[in-house]
Amino acid sequence: MEQALRVCVYGATGYTGIELLRYLSQHPYVKVVSVLSRTYAGRYLSDVLPSFFNTYLSKIPLTEEPQEDFDLAFLCLPHEISLNLVPELIKKGKKVIDLSGAYRISKKELYPEFYGFEHVHEETLKLAVYGLPEVFRDSIKNATLVANPGCYPTATLLGLYPFLKEGINLDRVIVDAISGVSGAGRKTAQHFHYPEMEQNIMAYSVEKHRHVPEMEDVITKISGKSVKIRFTPKVIPASRGMLCSLYVQTSEKRLKDLFEETYLCEKFVKIIHEPPATKHVIGTNLCLIYPYYEERTQTAVIITVIDNLGKGASSQAIQNMNIMLGMDEATSIEKPALFP
Amino acid sequence: MEQALRVCVYGATGYTGIELLRYLSQHPYVKVVSVLSRTYAGRYLSDVLPSFFNTYLSKIPLTEEPQEDFDLAFLCLPHEISLNLVPELIKKGKKVIDLSGAYRISKKELYPEFYGFEHVHEETLKLAVYGLPEVFRDSIKNATLVANPGCYPTATLLGLYPFLKEGINLDRVIVDAISGVSGAGRKTAQHFHYPEMEQNIMAYSVEKHRHVPEMEDVITKISGKSVKIRFTPKVIPASRGMLCSLYVQTSEKRLKDLFEETYLCEKFVKIIHEPPATKHVIGTNLCLIYPYYEERTQTAVIITVIDNLGKGASSQAIQNMNIMLGMDEATSIEKPALFP
Amino acid sequence: MEQALRVCVYGATGYTGIELLRYLSQHPYVKVVSVLSRTYAGRYLSDVLPSFFNTYLSKIPLTEEPQEDFDLAFLCLPHEISLNLVPELIKKGKKVIDLSGAYRISKKELYPEFYGFEHVHEETLKLAVYGLPEVFRDSIKNATLVANPGCYPTATLLGLYPFLKEGINLDRVIVDAISGVSGAGRKTAQHFHYPEMEQNIMAYSVEKHRHVPEMEDVITKISGKSVKIRFTPKVIPASRGMLCSLYVQTSEKRLKDLFEETYLCEKFVKIIHEPPATKHVIGTNLCLIYPYYEERTQTAVIITVIDNLGKGASSQAIQNMNIMLGMDEATSIEKPALFP
Amino acid sequence: MEQALRVCVYGATGYTGIELLRYLSQHPYVKVVSVLSRTYAGRYLSDVLPSFFNTYLSKIPLTEEPQEDFDLAFLCLPHEISLNLVPELIKKGKKVIDLSGAYRISKKELYPEFYGFEHVHEETLKLAVYGLPEVFRDSIKNATLVANPGCYPTATLLGLYPFLKEGINLDRVIVDAISGVSGAGRKTAQHFHYPEMEQNIMAYSVEKHRHVPEMEDVITKISGKSVKIRFTPKVIPASRGMLCSLYVQTSEKRLKDLFEETYLCEKFVKIIHEPPATKHVIGTNLCLIYPYYEERTQTAVIITVIDNLGKGASSQAIQNMNIMLGMDEATSIEKPALFP
Repeated sequence: MEQALRVCVYGATGYTGIELLRYLSQHPYVKVVSVLSRTYAGRYLSDVLPSFFNTYLSKIPLTEEPQEDFDLAFLCLPHEISLNLVPELIKKGKKVIDLSGAYRISKKELYPEFYGFEHVHEETLKLAVYGLPEVFRDSIKNATLVANPGCYPTATLLGLYPFLKEGINLDRVIVDAISGVSGAGRKTAQHFHYPEMEQNIMAYSVEKHRHVPEMEDVITKISGKSVKIRFTPKVIPASRGMLCSLYVQTSEKRLKDLFEETYLCEKFVKIIHEPPATKHVIGTNLCLIYPYYEERTQTAVIITVIDNLGKGASSQAIQNMNIMLGMDEATSIEKPALFP
Repeated sequence: MEQALRVCVYGATGYTGIELLRYLSQHPYVKVVSVLSRTYAGRYLSDVLPSFFNTYLSKIPLTEEPQEDFDLAFLCLPHEISLNLVPELIKKGKKVIDLSGAYRISKKELYPEFYGFEHVHEETLKLAVYGLPEVFRDSIKNATLVANPGCYPTATLLGLYPFLKEGINLDRVIVDAISGVSGAGRKTAQHFHYPEMEQNIMAYSVEKHRHVPEMEDVITKISGKSVKIRFTPKVIPASRGMLCSLYVQTSEKRLKDLFEETYLCEKFVKIIHEPPATKHVIGTNLCLIYPYYEERTQTAVIITVIDNLGKGASSQAIQNMNIMLGMDEATSIEKPALFP
Repeated sequence: MEQALRVCVYGATGYTGIELLRYLSQHPYVKVVSVLSRTYAGRYLSDVLPSFFNTYLSKIPLTEEPQEDFDLAFLCLPHEISLNLVPELIKKGKKVIDLSGAYRISKKELYPEFYGFEHVHEETLKLAVYGLPEVFRDSIKNATLVANPGCYPTATLLGLYPFLKEGINLDRVIVDAISGVSGAGRKTAQHFHYPEMEQNIMAYSVEKHRHVPEMEDVITKISGKSVKIRFTPKVIPASRGMLCSLYVQTSEKRLKDLFEETYLCEKFVKIIHEPPATKHVIGTNLCLIYPYYEERTQTAVIITVIDNLGKGASSQAIQNMNIMLGMDEATSIEKPALFP
Repeated sequence: MEQALRVCVYGATGYTGIELLRYLSQHPYVKVVSVLSRTYAGRYLSDVLPSFFNTYLSKIPLTEEPQEDFDLAFLCLPHEISLNLVPELIKKGKKVIDLSGAYRISKKELYPEFYGFEHVHEETLKLAVYGLPEVFRDSIKNATLVANPGCYPTATLLGLYPFLKEGINLDRVIVDAISGVSGAGRKTAQHFHYPEMEQNIMAYSVEKHRHVPEMEDVITKISGKSVKIRFTPKVIPASRGMLCSLYVQTSEKRLKDLFEETYLCEKFVKIIHEPPATKHVIGTNLCLIYPYYEERTQTAVIITVIDNLGKGASSQAIQNMNIMLGMDEATSIEKPALFP
């Protein structure tokens, strides 16, 4: 490649930002030109995160505003900030991958209830492509704005896509999901204080979670049908990792074949024959799926695992970037997990 | 009480045995006269478990066989060993609380499939009372043999009992459950080696688990009806703790009232108004229940938490003992959790 | 006992306060009459900490000020608040056990450097008895004010006391200590956010720590000599637990005898013959000590373990209370650990 | 590079083997041609370790013996097996990097006491170069056999090297070290069973550890002097990570300068100005060092952190390989940590 792609990372010292930098610092065709952080502005990256000592980004200064021109921006920002920044950047001709939720749901009327703001950028919202490559690869290729999916929707939609693709009726799906704590971000909270989270298993947002309308919206996009998701998220004492159990009442029994055919050519989605463990995907872009049909209850049980900061956020964002720029989709994200 | 009850603990150095001793060493009306352990026979208890230094059991020798006569035995043994030991002990006039699975299911024909052995003690099996006090208190009072419930069945059945008691139809229930690692016992395994279990979320026994026939059998006992349980257990990086999510499709919406009425007089089952966390029940006999009805999917979502070694095993065994002996049911098990 | 001792706990919803309540709720001769918490005032204890459901304190209201008269107060407060509250309470005739550091060091001139305030209550400071029962039991009996020791000083001083008692010269001692995270209190911090503390080992306060003058001061009180402590604290991913390694260059080789003689009659200090593990003391008032003399380097290596919230704070405070009130010193704190 | 280096990994499914494969699978100039594992022979790598799905090694069969010719072998084997295999491989003209301890100590008379076997390959032992690149880089360049250092010696020797290089007298050094559990290998053990290691801090091998003669031997090699190491290892609940505190009584006070000069040109050793945390080096080849001189006790306190499986084992082995083969020393090991 003649010229490296110039990239700017907004909100770089949150967890998705740090994970992005981990991948970007090893990407052969990308140059990170600006690393933005309000909290740590004025310091060098490796002073804040010593693990970057061994990268070309070690002495890059953290700044509040971009210091150089760039081609593409990753936004790892609060939803409300992304909301207004995205159209500005697009107006300036930048490509944008937004890791917030501000452009994930296509129906603008849902934002007040689930995000607490009016979505005032309807035109930009129409531009947004949902960044789940295994489903929307072709649209991502030409996108100016990619709304990078939430972690729960990624793990759920990859588990439902084989049904949707085949037009199998779903009607109601129960999604029971477990996440590592990093999914809640870097902001401290009493219940995430180490002594209180150690040896804890905690359900939360049982009555309402903003990933539900995101899942339902994308399912409708894919299948044209309306499906109701019953969603119960839990957080457990692990930094990273996500395991989702999906329950679908159906008469479709040939699950292994259906799933293997669907993902035959996918590098990052693998069908496995034993119940999966998140340990094998920590630090990767992998999604492992274990489909099982239980005759006696006529229930399809689909179990999926991802790294919530990987395929559930930052490495998926890199995958989207690679596609948008016509590079090999797997560049810099085809890595084995840290084990143990 | 004039005379202390003399108790013998078989298999005392496994996790349920150790937890039993923790409670028994503080019990005002009980004297532990024999502590049996094949693995550590010949040593003193506090040499193997220094934390017992501060108890009267500190210098009790661990032995292979009982050293003194006793009134009641707790069996913390493998299923196959319990199977044959129980009738022997009963013949000798002992009361027995069996923490294994050998006498939990009333239908003897299910044992070969789920336990791998023929149940050769049909008469003894008929004597067994299922030791879930909130449901079977009256039978436990007069029992000679109590089959102490499994951890998953305890957390599940307490969450379903309000429906069963009211005759509400259940038909099919999805039970999605998370357990701490101690639920799998003290025997080492590659995937439970610390470095591999840290930061891991793992599904297992998705296709078949012996707690399913136990739950279904007890449900039928209570309600006279047949209900199918779809059960998915997961293990996460915590020593103790269990959280179960139960999904029931129903039109019954008054869940909070139903649950509060059912457990109004129970000391160890509490209905709470926020999604529960296991941290609050570690080391206790408590079961916290959070019931929620979701209109849009017509689903009752019941979330229960227990300590798998507490209400899920050893403190429930103490509760059963207290009932069998006519003592205050809460003796020695009414303690707050270790927090943090 | 005719009448229960009436106790008030200030700062009850921090970690040492919660742990105190755990013991106090089970204490046969004590009645907790007021539970003070600024953060949670207006709520019931079991609403904030559901694990207290099973205690008589379940429905006690958390308040900002005491609601009833009391005999003894535990202060689990910031140092600066304790500083001024202690003399007020003493003036009102209360006995006080202060778990802060405000009265631990007898030399008032050290407070500005190590605590950031002038110690303006010199007379009260003179009243303070250092609450390490194994060393100062006789003074504690008659104390009005007990300064409850810090966790690091407790684990260190119990490891050095056999030398000090025998008049063995110490000169310089290296104390290398590891603590669970709860030692830093309940206040959240970025580096104690679960995802960042998991799998982390962190040194801190290497150049200055307020427990150093505390240790040196008490050593001088015991031995009349001046000893210099080189202290390096580390925090690791555990909620509770503390392990200290002490290094003393000495020609005294008969360590096991020396240690066993010193602590022969102590219930809560035990000499063990294998390197200790904190797991055995979690939730207890135990201190396990492993003394070893290495010939080739002429170094005494003393390893001690405690629960930083137990013998390092709250159960030691109960031990002090028991002594002050003429009760059996072990009342309510002679319990086995939670294992696993 | 015209031709890739052909590499064979013996003992590939232990922790150091897996970590080696993680790096090797991303190395641009290396081709792994054989992956040996007795335990899992006959299966594909990604069936045993699904995280390798995304690498060219995914479908490599695990075998008991090499299937193809190779240039260099990594031995991740028990000491006794390495002992005899190394001379065989060298006789066949292979280069060898041995991650066991069989060739680390140059004095053959120490092996019976510390390794339990006679070292019967004296000639081969003389060939062995100690693989600590920052100290022995020039010898490594021409080595046929590299004895890859132990994790504790790596973290200790890098902390002492600035003194040794300057000829500063050390005499006696106290090394107080903390390791994650993976340092003990993949073999299960009761005390490393997840429920027992969670929330545990454990000292071990306090009286004798085979890394002591290794450290003392290398110190003599470097400085020509004899130094006595007092060594106390501890293990804590973390999969990876190692923090060593070194205590040296000295009058040398200019530590920061001394350390910065020593490591000025080193990519993988960094002097930092705040006490270090292992979290920043997990998954990297970095060693962070924090040197501090305490006037009042005339003690140099040096704190070092590494990933025990990284700079303490496998990435250091890669660094050695790169040097032996004349490649850029940092190839494939210059990566940021996984954070969080």
